[in-house]
Parts: sequence; C-alpha cells; structure tokens
Amino acid sequence: MDWVARNSKYTLTDAESGFSIAFAGMNFNDSDIDALSPLFERAKKEVARIEAGEIKNPDENRRVTHFTDRITYTQSALYAEVEDFAEKVRSGEIRGATGKSFDALVVNGIGGSALGPQLMQFAVNGPYWNEFDREKRKNNLKLYFLDNTDSAEFADLLEVMDPERTLQLVISKSGGTRETKNNMIAMEDFYASNGLDFAKFAVAITMKNSQLDQHARSNKWLKVFEMADSIGGRTSETSIVGHVPAALTGVDFKKFLAGACAMDSWTRNTQKTANPAMMLSAMWYIAGKGKGDRNMVIVPYSDRLVLLSRYLQQLVMESLGKALDLDGKEVHQGLNVFGNKGGTDAHAFIQQLNDGRDDFFATFIEVLSDSKKIAMGDGFAMGDYLHGFLEGLSAALRGKGRQTIQIKLPKLDEFTLGQIIALYERAVAVYAEFININAFHQPGVQAYKLAANGILELAAELNTSLKTLAPLTGTAADIAAKVGKADKTVEIAGLLDKAALNSENVSRTFDTTSGTWIYSVK
Amino acid sequence: MDWVARNSKYTLTDAESGFSIAFAGMNFNDSDIDALSPLFERAKKEVARIEAGEIKNPDENRRVTHFTDRITYTQSALYAEVEDFAEKVRSGEIRGATGKSFDALVVNGIGGSALGPQLMQFAVNGPYWNEFDREKRKNNLKLYFLDNTDSAEFADLLEVMDPERTLQLVISKSGGTRETKNNMIAMEDFYASNGLDFAKFAVAITMKNSQLDQHARSNKWLKVFEMADSIGGRTSETSIVGHVPAALTGVDFKKFLAGACAMDSWTRNTQKTANPAMMLSAMWYIAGKGKGDRNMVIVPYSDRLVLLSRYLQQLVMESLGKALDLDGKEVHQGLNVFGNKGGTDAHAFIQQLNDGRDDFFATFIEVLSDSKKIAMGDGFAMGDYLHGFLEGLSAALRGKGRQTIQIKLPKLDEFTLGQIIALYERAVAVYAEFININAFHQPGVQAYKLAANGILELAAELNTSLKTLAPLTGTAADIAAKVGKADKTVEIAGLLDKAALNSENVSRTFDTTSGTWIYSVK
Repeated sequence: MDWVARNSKYTLTDAESGFSIAFAGMNFNDSDIDALSPLFERAKKEVARIEAGEIKNPDENRRVTHFTDRITYTQSALYAEVEDFAEKVRSGEIRGATGKSFDALVVNGIGGSALGPQLMQFAVNGPYWNEFDREKRKNNLKLYFLDNTDSAEFADLLEVMDPERTLQLVISKSGGTRETKNNMIAMEDFYASNGLDFAKFAVAITMKNSQLDQHARSNKWLKVFEMADSIGGRTSETSIVGHVPAALTGVDFKKFLAGACAMDSWTRNTQKTANPAMMLSAMWYIAGKGKGDRNMVIVPYSDRLVLLSRYLQQLVMESLGKALDLDGKEVHQGLNVFGNKGGTDAHAFIQQLNDGRDDFFATFIEVLSDSKKIAMGDGFAMGDYLHGFLEGLSAALRGKGRQTIQIKLPKLDEFTLGQIIALYERAVAVYAEFININAFHQPGVQAYKLAANGILELAAELNTSLKTLAPLTGTAADIAAKVGKADKTVEIAGLLDKAALNSENVSRTFDTTSGTWIYSVK
Repeated sequence: MDWVARNSKYTLTDAESGFSIAFAGMNFNDSDIDALSPLFERAKKEVARIEAGEIKNPDENRRVTHFTDRITYTQSALYAEVEDFAEKVRSGEIRGATGKSFDALVVNGIGGSALGPQLMQFAVNGPYWNEFDREKRKNNLKLYFLDNTDSAEFADLLEVMDPERTLQLVISKSGGTRETKNNMIAMEDFYASNGLDFAKFAVAITMKNSQLDQHARSNKWLKVFEMADSIGGRTSETSIVGHVPAALTGVDFKKFLAGACAMDSWTRNTQKTANPAMMLSAMWYIAGKGKGDRNMVIVPYSDRLVLLSRYLQQLVMESLGKALDLDGKEVHQGLNVFGNKGGTDAHAFIQQLNDGRDDFFATFIEVLSDSKKIAMGDGFAMGDYLHGFLEGLSAALRGKGRQTIQIKLPKLDEFTLGQIIALYERAVAVYAEFININAFHQPGVQAYKLAANGILELAAELNTSLKTLAPLTGTAADIAAKVGKADKTVEIAGLLDKAALNSENVSRTFDTTSGTWIYSVK
C-alpha cells in the first residue's frame, strides 16, 4: 500500500469536532492489528466493566469512575455549588477575613492535583495570566501552585503573595499526603504569624471523613468540596479537582467536559479500527512489543501545550509502570514518556530522533488554527512555518524508518484539551487490559513513602543520640558507630550533610587526606 | 564490598565548594572501570586536543572552545562591554527611542539561546521574577522568551509587553535560523505599526558578518555583540549568549563562570577515578553498554532546577544522538534524557521507576541548604522531608536493583549551577570519545530543515495553482491530482487542513460516507 492509501486508511477523524489522529506513520499492517483481536475483545469487555461500576482497581478494592462521573457531573449539585462559589469569589460576595476581595488562588496539591490544573491553565489562559490586571482577568484569580516540599518553592511564593487577597485551596484525597500537609502547615503558620485567621481563606477538596476533611470542618474553613473515592489523582482533571481551579480562573469547565465526553463516546466504538483509543493502544503495543520497548515522545506543536508531555508522563507511567500483572506474575511493565514542544525541540533532542537510537515513536500534535495571523513578508504566515516544520520533521523521520503518530486539533481550547486528555486516559485503560495489569493503583509510591519514613525515623533517633553525645567530632562512620548504627553510615552521612548546611549545631570540613567529611556537633 | 565501603570509595567531593557526586548506586565494579582504560586514555588525549584549540568538530571544520574561552572571558573587552551596557540600561542612561527606561527584556532565540538563559533565570531569580516590581528587581529587567515560530507565543507576549520599555535581544549565530528570524520580522513589523523605530530597542548577538550582523549594523541597532564561531548553541550558556541576559537580570555571571571553571579544573584530573566527568561518562557507558541502552532520568530535588532536565536533554541528546561515528560507520548512537523535579515526580512517573521497566538510571541532585527554615511542628523542617523523600526513594530503588547517581550541592546559586553545567558538558565530550562520535555537530537538524523547506515550496506551488484553478471543490486526492501532484496528496491534505482553519479562501467539511475531508477553494 502506498503512503497516500495508507494515510487514508489509517486516519480516524471526528467529523463534528475535526479532531483527527493518523497512525500511518507507525510500522504495522493489518495482520498485526488482526493478531490483537483477543486483546481488543478483552479490553472492550473490561472497559465496559469499568463503566458499569465494577471493582476495577482490585488492590485498592475500588471502582474507577472518571469516565462515567463526568457524564453527569454538570447536572450535579456539586457542580452548581462550585460555579456558585466561584461567582461569589469573583463578585466579591465571598471575601477574606480582612474584608478584601480575593485576587489570587494557591493550589496546594501534588501529582494529578497540580499537573492537571497546570496544564489547563497554561493551555487556556496562557503563560502570562498572573501578570494580567484584574480587569483583564475579568475578576478571575491569579493562579499559583505548591506541589512539593521544597522550602524554596514556599519562600518564592511568599515573595509575590498577598495573604489577605489569596484563596488557599488544599487538595488531598486522604489528607495524609505529606507534601501537601507540609505546605498546609507552613501556610497556616504564616497566616497566624501575620495575625490572620487561615480558616477564613481556606478551601479543601478531599474525601469525606478524611484527615483533611475533619481538619477543615473542625476549623470552619470557608468551604469543603467532596471528592470521590473512585477517582485517582492522575485521572482527576475532569472531576472536582480540575473544576475548582478552572472555575476560579475563568476556564469553561463545561466545555472541557463536553470535549472529554465526546472522546469517551467516540472511543466506545466497538469496531476496533474505528476506535482511536483502541488503535492508539494497539500502536503502543505493536511498537513496544507489548513491553514498552520504545519510548513515547510527545511533541505538541503548540507553545501552550508545553506541559502536555509532563501530564501524560504521569498518566501513562504511573498507570502502566507496574511490577506485577493481575495474576501476580512479575512483569515489570511500563512505557516511558517525554517531550516538550515542537518546533523548538527540533533544536534540542530531535537530532537524536533523526539520526540516533531508533528506540521511540513520536506523537505530534498540531493545532491547525493560528492564534494570530502574522505575515512573514514572503507569502507565508508564522504559523505556516510551524506547519512546515512539523511536516518536514515527520517526513524526515519517516524517511529514516522512524515511527510517528499525528494528531490534529482544529484549535486549542477547553473542548479539544478535554478530547486529548480523555483519549489518553482511555488508551491507558485499554493498554492496561492488553498487558493484564491494574492501571489504577501505585504500589511503588507506597514503597517509597515507607522508605522515606524510615529516613525520618533515623533522623529523629540520630538527633536524640547527638543531644546526649554532643559535643563530638568525627566522620560519619565514627558518629554512626557511636550511636550504634554503623550499618546506617551512608544514611547518617546524608543527614549530617543536610544538618551541616541548615543547623547551627552541626558543621563539617573536608579532610582531603582521608577524602571524607569531618562533622562537628555542638 | 558493603554499601558503606562502596559509598566511601566511589564518592568524589570537591573540598573547596562542597560539590559531591556518588556513583555507588550504579551497577559496576573496579574491573568494569579498568576495562575502560583505553577509552579513558583516548578521552584524556582528545579533550586535551579540544582545549589546545585543534579542529574537534571535523564535519563543520571548527574548533570547540567553550571549555577554554570561559577561562579568560571575564578579562576580555567584550565582557566589560556587556557589563557596561547592562549597567547603563539599569541606570537609564541607555533608553528606548521614546525616552523611557527599559524595564523588560525579550530574548528571541531557540535551542541553547533559550534553554540556557531559561534555566539560569529560573534557578537564580526564581519563578516569579516578572511579577516583582522594578525596585525589588533592583532596576534589572523582566525576562521573556520567544523560542518558537508559534503565533500563539508571539500573541501571548504582546498581551504583557510594553514595547516602549522593552529591550529586544535577537540571538542567532548565522541569522538564518528561521524561528528566530520569523519572530524578528514579526517584532519589527509590530514596532513599525506602532510608530516605533525597532532599531532603537534592538540588540543582537551573532557571528561577525552573519546575515543578522549585517542586518543589525545596517539598521543601526543599539548594539551588536559578537559570538564565536567555535561555540555551539547547546554549549553557549557560559559565553556571550548566557552573559547578556544574565547581566540584564542581575545574575552574577562572573560567579557562574567561576563555578564552571572550577569544574573544568577538577575534571582535568588525569587520574580517571578521581575525575567526575570521566567517572560520570563511565557510568553512562557501563549502564547503557556503550549504546545508550538505559534512559538517563534527571531528578533534581529543587523546584528551581525544574528546567535542568530539559537543558540536559538538549545537551546530551543533540550531542550524542548521531548516525555515524568518526570513521563514517553507521552506529545510531544516543542517550535519552528526561525528568522534572523530586519529590514531586514521586507522585508522577517514579511509580514506573520503582516497579516497572528496569531500563534507566536515575540521577538525583540534592541542594543541601534550605531556602527557608520552615518548622513542621514535629521536630522536622520542610527541607528535612525533602531530604527524607530523596533518600527514601534512593533506598527503595536500590532495594530493587535499580541504579542511581547522587549529586549534592551545598546550595543553589550561580557557582553551583556553573559546576553542574560544566560537569555535564565535559562528561558529554568524554563520552563522545568513548563512542567515537562528533559531539559538536547536528546533521539531523539540517536534514529536517531541508524537509521543512520542501513543504513550504510545495505550499507556494499549491497556492499558485489554486489561484488559477479556483473555485474548486474536492478531496485532497482530487486537488492533488488537479495540480499534478498526486504523490503529494498527504502533504497537500496537510496544507489544505491548515488553510481551511486560517484562510478565508479555503473551507472544509467532512464527508462521513467516504471518511474524507472535502475542501472548497474560492
């Protein structure tokens, strides 16, 4: 089959929205697709079970409802409550404790609670929203994030935050997520030290009866919005988690959900080759031999989609990177995702994609409509060059036998962003069935949290011991031996390094003879 | 060897700065290192040839001088000229054509011209610099970037840019880089349409006698700074390219160069196991079997280093992703790089690193000094948690046989950023010798530029033909046949899709029966 016929055959288009996805640039043929028939059948059945509300996250004994909840969400009381709340914030009916209207929102949340709203904000409101004045924002709020436990992030925020005019949104399903809790504690202290009642500036999104729910309610926070047990962080952008930041920043969330739901409908098509989620999963499966042997490189030709690769990195890798399959067999699955934005990336890592290791497939996303018509004086507009660069790169890669998928959006807005997110969510659900894993848990994150707790426990023990033993001087090995933890010398060295730069009681000098740090504890 | 002894043996520390790098978490032993002796010898000799000014970019017949130029740069007339210029901009001695002092800088450049200054700005001045008032910025300029040919990026900038108070810096070695040229043309037109003389706001960094040099000089731009032929974009941050944006935003560039030069000195150590660039390259080589078989995952535990992975992605992948080795043999080399920031990433893709495919090695970068001491009420500070998360993740990964490198910086500032950049630049130069490739050209980028030109030529021909044939209606195949380019149906479909969303003369409707777009050309 020639390139023209192949494109015609393997491009799927949604007539109503104009969204299209072309698979012709991938190395496969009909028999490869046919060979996947049993997997397609399985995925079709299992995605239907998800949508029927069965337990599809067995390890956590949970239903998985992000596909279905969004169908009815806009008719819910919760939806109306959020919209009403946002309107009252904009109008100034709801104000902070000192009587000033809110002008900024801090989203304190990690993982999906941050990546989704960040992607949405950048895509819809652009990179300079926080530099707009209130009028230009139509009374919507500036938007900031706390998504780590790095004091630099917190300190940086304090440099621009007016606490009296800032709404503090804390998002945590359980309330126990340590990074989010740390920022909450820090912010509560900051408000208190400024004589402000944090509760009168604070809003929570959390599960009913969670630690955070109890904390917020007992302290009489402005508002507590309930989130479902059955929606995971990395698929929460179409839920209340995405809605509250969107509503407060003027994003049309209803339109976003309409886009997601339109993609959900399309990807319920039972004819596999007409179903873009099924076909997308099939491409991943065939390209990576069902084991993720090729990296997924995401290249949106759109500045406002620069965060998409980071968003999909979480969605795909946290969902598919699993040690065990559903039968308990060790499989160590996964699918690497990275990328930034085209054409810029062509001046960065695309050199390797062209000439180097053939260990990837690239997904290009084109936004057809130019934001602004800017003539270049040669008959072309600025956007024509962007198109030329995309098609040129695509042709160059194809000429070298490298694989590509091309998605086209008529324009970038809430609707098409909803389509992209839903497409990848559904492809992930399908692919998980292809490889027989649970896409909806994250046991590796739990393992790491336990290990982190171990370090903090060691730190507490070390601090206690050092108080008794001080003053003392020695290498990490000396000190570890003295506190009876010689086997923890490396970890203790780490703690002493950290303390040497942050505590008045600990200092260090490097002994070049032995090649080790000598610590002094007062 | 136990973990404690292994750490002690394979950690390299610079006593003066406190910079350290630990290789113990990688899977190797002394015999693996010994086996690389011939490669070490070769790299030692070849890096010395680079520093002696020999032609080490043979394809472009160029010397490679980023390691050596930075030793003497601060004593040069050019350095003094930049510092003087920046001071005059700050003081208001140099103003725009309408007499207003400059308050913002637009850097128009792509690849290294953008990624380096972006990394520096974020690391040193933080995420909210542009929201600071002039006093808080100490008369330094706000900083914006144009690094693509996306009209959305340009349109977004216009929403916040005050043209009378903005200095326009155009960076292009040749002046022919199309994305940069497009933004320059667009900006010149924008100034002209606002009755402003662009030249009086414009500064260039370019090679002597380049297209841009001639354009800027003949139009009497405010200033033209010369850049060396022998420094490539991806290694230009320690040159004039990094200096001008740094000087105008209050970054201590001298300190940055001091850090880079300190690392250069350290990595000239001829004892391979005491040389961090040699050891780092050896780790890449051993982990990826000399073919890049493992992805390099960069995880800085520092919010202000969130752009580091993107910077290193360019430096490493554009340098090492090559089809041919120096003997002309097809090798298709490369080394994939991705990552964002820890601990945040632990709630994103780290699930896969813990449990999924064992196809990577992670490099953790810790900043020991907390920006702010924020007590969490349990005896720990916010930064202690960040340390705990890093060490916890590191331990969890190690427990599963996954590989890690740990870099520690006493703090994050210009000096330590200079150290990191120089370390990776030198490791790339060493690794390139290990695998016998030219790290300093980018033939794949040239190939793609040619292909992009082909698309634009096709677009011009199509436009001409359509003017003769209009009005007409048909599928892309119909139209391609009519213009005598049936073999270009796919590319023509792409051009028509683009036109349909941007030109008044072209529209499209989707025919669901045939599953194709029908285009109408007026």
